[in-house]
Amino acid sequence: MDFLAEFEEKINQVNQSLQKYFMKNENYQMSIYDAMEYSLFSGGKRIRPVLCVACAELFGNAEDAMPFACAIEMIHTYSLIHDDLPCMDDDDLRRGKPTNHIIYGEAMAVLAGDALLNLAFETALQHSKATPAQTLEAVKIIAESAGTEGMIGGQVIDLESEGKDVDAVTLMAMHVHKTGALMMAPAKVGALIGGGTKEDILNMEKFARYLGVAFQIKDDILDVESTTEILGKPIGSDKLNEKTTFVTLYGMEQSRKMLEDYTQNAIATLEEYGDRAAFLKELSLFLLRRDR
Amino acid sequence: MDFLAEFEEKINQVNQSLQKYFMKNENYQMSIYDAMEYSLFSGGKRIRPVLCVACAELFGNAEDAMPFACAIEMIHTYSLIHDDLPCMDDDDLRRGKPTNHIIYGEAMAVLAGDALLNLAFETALQHSKATPAQTLEAVKIIAESAGTEGMIGGQVIDLESEGKDVDAVTLMAMHVHKTGALMMAPAKVGALIGGGTKEDILNMEKFARYLGVAFQIKDDILDVESTTEILGKPIGSDKLNEKTTFVTLYGMEQSRKMLEDYTQNAIATLEEYGDRAAFLKELSLFLLRRDR
Repeated sequence: MDFLAEFEEKINQVNQSLQKYFMKNENYQMSIYDAMEYSLFSGGKRIRPVLCVACAELFGNAEDAMPFACAIEMIHTYSLIHDDLPCMDDDDLRRGKPTNHIIYGEAMAVLAGDALLNLAFETALQHSKATPAQTLEAVKIIAESAGTEGMIGGQVIDLESEGKDVDAVTLMAMHVHKTGALMMAPAKVGALIGGGTKEDILNMEKFARYLGVAFQIKDDILDVESTTEILGKPIGSDKLNEKTTFVTLYGMEQSRKMLEDYTQNAIATLEEYGDRAAFLKELSLFLLRRDR
Repeated sequence: MDFLAEFEEKINQVNQSLQKYFMKNENYQMSIYDAMEYSLFSGGKRIRPVLCVACAELFGNAEDAMPFACAIEMIHTYSLIHDDLPCMDDDDLRRGKPTNHIIYGEAMAVLAGDALLNLAFETALQHSKATPAQTLEAVKIIAESAGTEGMIGGQVIDLESEGKDVDAVTLMAMHVHKTGALMMAPAKVGALIGGGTKEDILNMEKFARYLGVAFQIKDDILDVESTTEILGKPIGSDKLNEKTTFVTLYGMEQSRKMLEDYTQNAIATLEEYGDRAAFLKELSLFLLRRDR
C-alpha cells in the first residue's frame, strides 16, 4: 500500500474510533455535545492520533493504542477552541470554518473546551484494553504532556511573549512545549502500548521532538506563504499579533534550511528500525511538504 | 476530639497535601503557577476533599484517598475560575478576594483553569498509592463526575436556563449535576479507596446526593439572606442574573424545610454505620447551619 492510501486508512480508523468514543446524549445538556462535535469533526488533519497508532504498529499492537490516540486528539481540539477565544488569539476562522465561539458563543466554547479535555481522560480510562498498569502509565504521559510542563506551559510562554522581543532559546522552549509536547506524547504512548522497550520509547520521543519543531517551522512558513483559502485560517496572523516566529527570527531561507534539517534528524532517529518505519519516514516528509 | 477540631485538622491535612502536590516550578511559564496558586489557596472551605477523606476513614485507609481528594478540590477550583469569567457569570469577587481574571487577566484565567483540571489528573495518577486497578477506577469516577454527564453538564443546564422560567425538575437536574456530581465523586472515591463494599459505595453516593442538594439549597438561601462581607462574594447575584433558585421557585419557608429534609435524609443514609459515621453526620449539620 502506498503512503497516502495508508495515511487515509489510518485517518479513517481514527475518525471511526472518535465517533465511537464520542457519545452524544439526548438530555438536558445536549447542546454542549453539538459544540464539542463541531470542533472535534471539523476536518482536523489527525496527525497526532495517526502518529500514535503508527508508533504502536512499529512495535506490535496498534489497536490498543486507539483510545489514547483519540484522547490526545481531543486534547488538541480543546486547546484550539480555547486558543481561538477573544481573550486569547481572537480568531474567527479555523479549518475554513467559523471558530467554536463564533457559532456557540464564548461561554459554551469555554465549556466545550473544558469538556473535551475531561472527555480525553474519560475516553482513555474507559476504553483502554491495556493492563491497568500500562493504562496508568499511558494516561500519566498524556496528562504531563498536556499540562503546565507541556502544552499549557507553551501557551503561557506564547501569551507572555506577545509584543515582546523573543530570543531563539525562548522561541524553542515555547514550541517544544506548545507543539512538541503533544507530538511527543502520542509517539511515546504508541511505543509503550505497542510493546516497545524503554529505549524504543526514548527513541520515539526524540523522533517526535524533531518532528514537532519541524511542524512548527512549517506552520510559521505557511503563515507567510500560503493563502487564507488553502490554509483555512487567516494568513499573516503572526505578523498582526506581533508574534516572534522562526521566519521573523531567522528569515525565510534559514527557516527552510532548519525545516529540512529537523525533518532529516527526525528520520535519522528511525534508521535502526529499517523498512518497518517506512510509514513514519513518509509521514515526516509529508509534513515537510504539506501546503496547509 | 470534637467535631470542629477534627474538621480543622482534616482541612489542615488537605491544605498540606495540596501544597505538597502543587509544585511551583521556576521556569519560563512560572506565571501560570502564580495564577493557579492564587485560586487554589484562596480560602476554599475544602468540603469536597474533607468529605473524601472522611468517607475513606469510615471504611479504613484514609491516607491513600488524599491524592484523589486533592484532585477533586483542583477540579472544583478550576470550575470556579471559569465560572467567574466575563463570558460566564462575570463575577469580580470570590471568597472576599478579586476573582482570578481580575488579577491575572482573562487569557491567563482560562489557562489557569485548564491547567488545574489537567493537574487534577496528574496528581491522582502520580501520587496514588492504591493499586493500579483501584487507581484507574477512582480516576474514572472523578472524570465522569466532572464531565458532560456530571459537573460540566450542570453548568450547561445553568447557562441555558438563564433568563428563562425553569421548572422544578430542570432545577433539580441542574444541581444534581452541577453541585451534586462533585460531592458524590469524593464520597464514592473515599469509600472505594477506604475499602468499602459495593453497597457501601452506593450508600455513600446516596448520602452525598442528598448532601449536595442540601448544600445548593443553603447556597440559594445565603444568596438572599447573607451579606457580601460574610459571604465573600456579592449577595443577590442570582436575582441580578435572573436565575431560578430553590428560593425563587419554592419560597424561603419551603426552601428551609427542604434544606432540613435533605440534610436529615443524608444523615439517615449513615444510620447503619452508627457512631463510626459521627463526623459525617456532624459535617452534614455543619453545612446546614453554615453562614457562608
